Amino acid sequence: MIVAKKVRLAKEASKSLGVLSSAQKDQALEAMACALESNMSQIIEENQIDVRIAKENKRSKALIDRLVLNENRVKAMAQGLRVIKSLPDPVGEVISQWRRPNGLQIGQKRVPLGVVGIIYESRPNVTADAIGLCLKTGNAVVLRGSSEAIHSNKAIVKAMTEAAYSAGIPHGSVQLVEDTSRESVQELIKLNGLVDVVIPRGGAGLINTVVANATVPVIETGVGNCHVYVDGECNHDMAVDIVVNAKTQRPGVCNAAETLLVDKTIAAGILPRIVDKLKEMNVEIRGCEKTREIVPEVLPASSEDWSEEYLDYILAVKVVDGIDDAIDHINKYGSGHSEAIVTSNYFNAEKFLNYVDAAAVYVNTSTRFTDGFEYGFGAELGISTQKLHARGPMGLKELTTIKYIIRGQGQIRK
Amino acid sequence: MIVAKKVRLAKEASKSLGVLSSAQKDQALEAMACALESNMSQIIEENQIDVRIAKENKRSKALIDRLVLNENRVKAMAQGLRVIKSLPDPVGEVISQWRRPNGLQIGQKRVPLGVVGIIYESRPNVTADAIGLCLKTGNAVVLRGSSEAIHSNKAIVKAMTEAAYSAGIPHGSVQLVEDTSRESVQELIKLNGLVDVVIPRGGAGLINTVVANATVPVIETGVGNCHVYVDGECNHDMAVDIVVNAKTQRPGVCNAAETLLVDKTIAAGILPRIVDKLKEMNVEIRGCEKTREIVPEVLPASSEDWSEEYLDYILAVKVVDGIDDAIDHINKYGSGHSEAIVTSNYFNAEKFLNYVDAAAVYVNTSTRFTDGFEYGFGAELGISTQKLHARGPMGLKELTTIKYIIRGQGQIRK
Repeated sequence: MIVAKKVRLAKEASKSLGVLSSAQKDQALEAMACALESNMSQIIEENQIDVRIAKENKRSKALIDRLVLNENRVKAMAQGLRVIKSLPDPVGEVISQWRRPNGLQIGQKRVPLGVVGIIYESRPNVTADAIGLCLKTGNAVVLRGSSEAIHSNKAIVKAMTEAAYSAGIPHGSVQLVEDTSRESVQELIKLNGLVDVVIPRGGAGLINTVVANATVPVIETGVGNCHVYVDGECNHDMAVDIVVNAKTQRPGVCNAAETLLVDKTIAAGILPRIVDKLKEMNVEIRGCEKTREIVPEVLPASSEDWSEEYLDYILAVKVVDGIDDAIDHINKYGSGHSEAIVTSNYFNAEKFLNYVDAAAVYVNTSTRFTDGFEYGFGAELGISTQKLHARGPMGLKELTTIKYIIRGQGQIRK
Repeated sequence: MIVAKKVRLAKEASKSLGVLSSAQKDQALEAMACALESNMSQIIEENQIDVRIAKENKRSKALIDRLVLNENRVKAMAQGLRVIKSLPDPVGEVISQWRRPNGLQIGQKRVPLGVVGIIYESRPNVTADAIGLCLKTGNAVVLRGSSEAIHSNKAIVKAMTEAAYSAGIPHGSVQLVEDTSRESVQELIKLNGLVDVVIPRGGAGLINTVVANATVPVIETGVGNCHVYVDGECNHDMAVDIVVNAKTQRPGVCNAAETLLVDKTIAAGILPRIVDKLKEMNVEIRGCEKTREIVPEVLPASSEDWSEEYLDYILAVKVVDGIDDAIDHINKYGSGHSEAIVTSNYFNAEKFLNYVDAAAVYVNTSTRFTDGFEYGFGAELGISTQKLHARGPMGLKELTTIKYIIRGQGQIRK
């Protein structure tokens, strides 16, 4: 019930927050950025408590790396808020407006969602990002971070809310759920009528739990089993560059490639080149039978490899029987995230774009571009892999909904 | 597992259905309309079995009225398909496209959702509507109608699918779940990865069951506790007309008004006029204390009346202390459907439009206009009362999602 109490405060605050002017919200964003900088030493001190506990608990190096805050990382959080401040405010935009034969003027106006719940793991910078993105779009925000980052999150929220409320943001607009038990997640995702959407940000386990149990609307983010298909007709140098980039430029993220598909007509020619390059980057390769006939040193792939999101220096490789076989494989095993073809054949390019069912489909470029900043949105809330409301990189607009505004002169329905 | 098997067939069919040309889909819509007409006698015969069983089971008159099909109703179903045929196809529209500094061309293209599940009650015309709307937008559809209409639904689906498949719609695109047990609903709403969205159409019980149990995305439709607020400054004749229209023009639908709010400064003058007019229409009135001081014959309202969706000739009436009190009441008790103010005061009109949190907000006109046809969409899938993906009347566009299409020349991420 403690979560519900906090969410009710957020809901109440959202009423006046939703109609604040852009100037007021931008002033608060600047104030919050300054507050992070001026409270830097205290934030880092609190973070060191989290880091110490994580080390005592023998948490993984990767987790501790995500958790740790230093001067540069806090500065980057403040800078992120200033970038959000510089973006256009989507709230209030009238997307379209028309007049009906009876004289009614009907308009679609962009408005905040209301109360946004964010459930996330051990990165404390998500706290600052989420507050900035939600306040910019006039949404109250309920944060449920992980226990690992609780001291950091408290310090960040304290500094940011003091600054925001002094700058005119309604009290209660930002709520941190300090209870980091599983029960608090379960309560938050079932507060229909109070929470307008929940966005889980983190690993597959967290996302699946939220999707399976939420009764409030969810935007599913993240899981990426992405493919690069190298077509029979293509520029081989370009294909090698794209495969290497999609796999190795940052293997731990959702838009990195996990499986390479190669058309059988060029497999013998191009596979040894690709394998050589990837071996230089210490990538482990798991190939199908045909791949291993061409490059015997490759490890054998099991059928589970086609579904795996490695997030690591590992790549599955399969030789396929042309574009249709490639598309079938992707639609069967892909997670609907990002898929790329390398081809110089016009018809194959168009077929791939039309038939592959994913948030983002690429011709002759790397899957690594699926990203709000790379798309020019200026900010990113994550990558949606569902089809409802938002698909692909989410910018500020995805934190809004619409409202119909109808102006009449006494019209009644006959 | 029987539902999953049907949904898998739908998913398979959706792959080629999604890329059919508009001409092919429109040809199928015409063929389905003709099939309803040429199979009219068989459809009505099967419907009479349903009607006989409903009568034997002593089902309500209202249910039997919704269930029954006659020549005119079947003709209207066919006509509905021809209207859908005449509308523009939203699939394939490129909503926006831009070029990034690195030369990537990024486009947002409108595509089908994939597989749409519709769960509905005893009106067999929903079967034809849902098939028409989904096929027009390139979606496969899984229909789960009620047991009361199962003979009618089977006959309609048989006639329509034979015609559609002959006209080139992929086999399997339309699936009727003939198992009308509760278990079949529970199975359908948990088929993540196969069902892209479920839309429940019916009463609050059905909708709440689906929202509470679904793990696939849901579009919540329907419940309408709508208000008309008569402001202190307004044209009294206009106010009386709008209140009477919003309550009585069709009381059984979700956009009918359920509560009247009247500013205290004009209550003594206007309430007797409104009550007189509503009494002529046999409307039962349940008023607050102040209302009953002005019109003593009015029945007393209990606190439950403010939350009630009567869908009947009943109206709750409350005297309020100005616009702020009215907005607070609406945001507390309303269902976020349709809300109206009658006013001649500019600032109060704007305040109402900005602060009332609902899918549709009206100035000086009736809540009864919340409707896809009245808005000019040409077709309607229902009224969404949630904020995610669709809000308010849903037309064809709401059955689509977007896909990012990125064309490159070998770009890789640095």
